[in-house]
Amino acid sequence: MSAAAAFEPLPEVAPAQPSPAVVDLLGVLSYAELTAFHRLAEDAALAPTLADKAALSQMAVEEFTHFTLLRDRLQQLGADPEQAMRPFVEALEQFHRRTTPRDWLEGLIKAYVGDSIGQEFYRAIAGYADPQTTAVIMQALGENGQADFVVERVREAIAADPSVAGRLALWGRRLVGEALSQAQWVAQEHESLAALIATRGGQAETIDLDLLARTFSQLTENHTKRMAALGLAS
Amino acid sequence: MSAAAAFEPLPEVAPAQPSPAVVDLLGVLSYAELTAFHRLAEDAALAPTLADKAALSQMAVEEFTHFTLLRDRLQQLGADPEQAMRPFVEALEQFHRRTTPRDWLEGLIKAYVGDSIGQEFYRAIAGYADPQTTAVIMQALGENGQADFVVERVREAIAADPSVAGRLALWGRRLVGEALSQAQWVAQEHESLAALIATRGGQAETIDLDLLARTFSQLTENHTKRMAALGLAS
Repeated sequence: MSAAAAFEPLPEVAPAQPSPAVVDLLGVLSYAELTAFHRLAEDAALAPTLADKAALSQMAVEEFTHFTLLRDRLQQLGADPEQAMRPFVEALEQFHRRTTPRDWLEGLIKAYVGDSIGQEFYRAIAGYADPQTTAVIMQALGENGQADFVVERVREAIAADPSVAGRLALWGRRLVGEALSQAQWVAQEHESLAALIATRGGQAETIDLDLLARTFSQLTENHTKRMAALGLAS
Repeated sequence: MSAAAAFEPLPEVAPAQPSPAVVDLLGVLSYAELTAFHRLAEDAALAPTLADKAALSQMAVEEFTHFTLLRDRLQQLGADPEQAMRPFVEALEQFHRRTTPRDWLEGLIKAYVGDSIGQEFYRAIAGYADPQTTAVIMQALGENGQADFVVERVREAIAADPSVAGRLALWGRRLVGEALSQAQWVAQEHESLAALIATRGGQAETIDLDLLARTFSQLTENHTKRMAALGLAS
């Protein structure tokens, strides 16, 4: 070996290709957070006081922080965030179009339910993405906790006028119904995602439909508990 | 003096009343930041790509961070942020209603011009508020710097189609004109604010109209320089 050869750079090792399922997962969650940011910022206009407006805006800003964590992780994996998010834009926009709040209380409940479903998804997937992605997801989870003010406001509103409870309970059901129907559509269109959920990250070649059904049913069950915390039937 | 008397608490010292001008100043800047947050988040919907959408959203989030700094300072001074902001809501909403961007480029320029005028105000007032308020304002100033992407995008757009430059220059003039006209209205309605600017925080009893005029003229001059940086006539 010559002395010159000793200075030749080592061949560059290309980073391992991230699994398409992890890119899909980060893509859908990134855009969910980005669009949640915009919708919450918009719904804050319905607030009755400037303090409430600021509180809902604060929730919006937290969703944006989650977005940046997920987007940065996509970039670290060598994926293009734009391409990773693009396939999920339509389903998420459709969800928001179908669930535009008509007033402040509906906006609050949407913020709470949306935030909670987001957290469930983070918890559900944290166990079977790669360790670094899991760390990012756990960080996003740890930064939640502005939702307490929603519970307080909704309970105050029901105490002041118990007749709103029926309408808001219906609204909660509609939100979770629309969320699940869009999630199912996304899972059908993106087999790798469905497989990730349905096999709990394993490499099984057939999707465990029973596990998929149980995942959605668990989500509905947790929704019922959260609605009860708001003082609402579900 | 009995032993029991020794345990009586000291009388509470009420915090010094903040000057009405400082409360007005923090009030108008707080609401300016809160509403800038909402308008930028909304204007991000005009972005041609998800990356641009995220970049303008990031600018929005920074305005919200400034808002929280100013609001927290109001609370430290024993002022109610809601009451401090309320008198300025109409003028700021009016500014935004009159300057709703029709497309992405107008939105970008509005973000840039608005952010810049905000920074000018911060710099102008930093010298004569109380030292702790000044520290808060300098912190808000130090956290700017996302506007570079605006300059880049506007220059790209003009390079691709030089014919847009005329329309955008006109738009820039309109923005600064509306901003100054609302600022003058606010200064008229809130004498303490006008006095703060016009006396540079001194205690003069008559407003120095010449100093007020020079402040506005300096603002216009700086605007011209910024428009030139964008590649636009002003």
